[in-house]
Amino acid sequence: MKKIINDPSTVVVESLRGMAVAHADLIRVVEEPALVVRADAPVAGKVAIVSGGGSGHEPLHGGFVGRGMLDAACPGAVFTSPTPDQVQAAIEQVDGAAGVLLVVKNYTGDVLNFETAAELAAADEIEVRTVVIDDDVAVKDSLYTAGRRGVGGTVLLEKIAGAAAERGSDLDTVERVASKVIAGVRSMGMALAAPTVPHVGEPSFDLDDGEMEVGIGIHGEPGRARMPLEGADAIVERLVEAVVTDLPYQSGDRVLLFTNSMGGTPLIELYLAHGIAERLLADRGIVVQRRLVGPFITSLEMQGMSLTLLKLDDELLELWDAPVHTPALRWGG
Amino acid sequence: MKKIINDPSTVVVESLRGMAVAHADLIRVVEEPALVVRADAPVAGKVAIVSGGGSGHEPLHGGFVGRGMLDAACPGAVFTSPTPDQVQAAIEQVDGAAGVLLVVKNYTGDVLNFETAAELAAADEIEVRTVVIDDDVAVKDSLYTAGRRGVGGTVLLEKIAGAAAERGSDLDTVERVASKVIAGVRSMGMALAAPTVPHVGEPSFDLDDGEMEVGIGIHGEPGRARMPLEGADAIVERLVEAVVTDLPYQSGDRVLLFTNSMGGTPLIELYLAHGIAERLLADRGIVVQRRLVGPFITSLEMQGMSLTLLKLDDELLELWDAPVHTPALRWGG
Repeated sequence: MKKIINDPSTVVVESLRGMAVAHADLIRVVEEPALVVRADAPVAGKVAIVSGGGSGHEPLHGGFVGRGMLDAACPGAVFTSPTPDQVQAAIEQVDGAAGVLLVVKNYTGDVLNFETAAELAAADEIEVRTVVIDDDVAVKDSLYTAGRRGVGGTVLLEKIAGAAAERGSDLDTVERVASKVIAGVRSMGMALAAPTVPHVGEPSFDLDDGEMEVGIGIHGEPGRARMPLEGADAIVERLVEAVVTDLPYQSGDRVLLFTNSMGGTPLIELYLAHGIAERLLADRGIVVQRRLVGPFITSLEMQGMSLTLLKLDDELLELWDAPVHTPALRWGG
Repeated sequence: MKKIINDPSTVVVESLRGMAVAHADLIRVVEEPALVVRADAPVAGKVAIVSGGGSGHEPLHGGFVGRGMLDAACPGAVFTSPTPDQVQAAIEQVDGAAGVLLVVKNYTGDVLNFETAAELAAADEIEVRTVVIDDDVAVKDSLYTAGRRGVGGTVLLEKIAGAAAERGSDLDTVERVASKVIAGVRSMGMALAAPTVPHVGEPSFDLDDGEMEVGIGIHGEPGRARMPLEGADAIVERLVEAVVTDLPYQSGDRVLLFTNSMGGTPLIELYLAHGIAERLLADRGIVVQRRLVGPFITSLEMQGMSLTLLKLDDELLELWDAPVHTPALRWGG
């Protein structure tokens, strides 16, 4: 196993310590239980947004904690759901008496543990709502999921709901906006080579030199098909076609296009793929109004990419453009 | 070869096309010869800053074009110097009649081709100065270099010189600030696994499962030593010790610490390494005042990392903090 680590059992906490010193202006880190919290939390009178999930998808979620996005993230062990007490602690740390929205990716363990935490918080008289994102069109049920998996759309959801909360919207509004994102976002990914989970020590799956996995999950779980490796034009066409026909996105629709690296795919390839996706969407009459390109929801060092489309309207566009100050996304005044 | 590409011969231009649509608010792309140019260039009365080098190190240099950093970047073929006519074209596109500073990484081909371009520009009566960065402490001469190689310090140099130019400093001042960065910046890197150059199709070198290369260059060229893979504490200590003792950086010095991924090393490992580096510097009494953590100067999908230290004073600190708006670095108003 080729990794820059000391011990598989301390990877997450050691990584959080590095993050804490790197971004002390934006976040603080709690070690027991593991949390990444916005530096100035709780913000009185602001709806708080909490997300989390297994580690190994960095910068998701801890890299999105800060002004205009998440109030707290709960990092589980690598590819393992956070515990209910972690989520409960996060809720307590960020509750500003305006309610808390939990953003949960649709994996069985995550859904269950966030639900338990929400019940515990409700017993403490904190108003908690939950949205579950399930944007991956690749498969209906999967290894860790009843229903579709939550993938790249999560990044867009956290940015947009975070912006709504930041500008003072109430819990009903933030929840409505989050639900609108979920209704209009779809994703699919593919991989060329597997990641290695530190405490496992072996690649999560084997792909031959000439093979790729289309529709793969962010834990390296199987997708739609294993097939011979194709050129970038054909790969991107497969992803665009699957995503566009699912909602469907139609000619004249305005969208945000998010081209994501699974971790090990470098920017030179990612921009190349992004350019192809733009062209294929233009061919279909779909209007790309905003873009995000980079490694934002990864699977350790897995080589591969995903495409996410979000249908935009004026409200979502304005919230996307609003200032954000987090370790991984930063723009605006 | 596992890559998301169509054809090795069109990787760079196809990638630039994707970049152009992704960041049309910040940059424009010229295809013949290949250039990435600041969207509003030339800026009249501003010193222009031009850099470039082989592709495959993204986001360096094209991702650093924009307000507060570079005016233009010249992307060569993968791991291949840009041509003199590329550099000359860049100079002509961005010259705002206040002079042009060329930022050149110390590789024989780069130095030669930028020098030829500078002579051509001088014949056109454009005032051109050149700074050559050679911050890699790993080896004295190397495969592509007489003297030390230019590596991670380049990112810091481009940010700081770019800020000086943006606030209206004259060419003498921008050159002086650039020279101060070069005098105070040192780097070293290591790798766990090799990159594959698209037109070569095979990994640039072989490392056994239990091996690492310490002091590696950003083209995968050999470093100081090939040795058994160690834990993160030992790896980071090797890099810190080599960098700190070179300048040397001493107790009480104020520094910027840049922890860089070579491309294939994911953020979870990078933050872990960064935390160790912070601790080791604190042990030596060196005061880390600013940080940069991420994949900013890469070697395609090479797994590995580098550490860069820059000695700070008030002038450099203020220039580092100044606003920057580029595809890969963005902060401030």
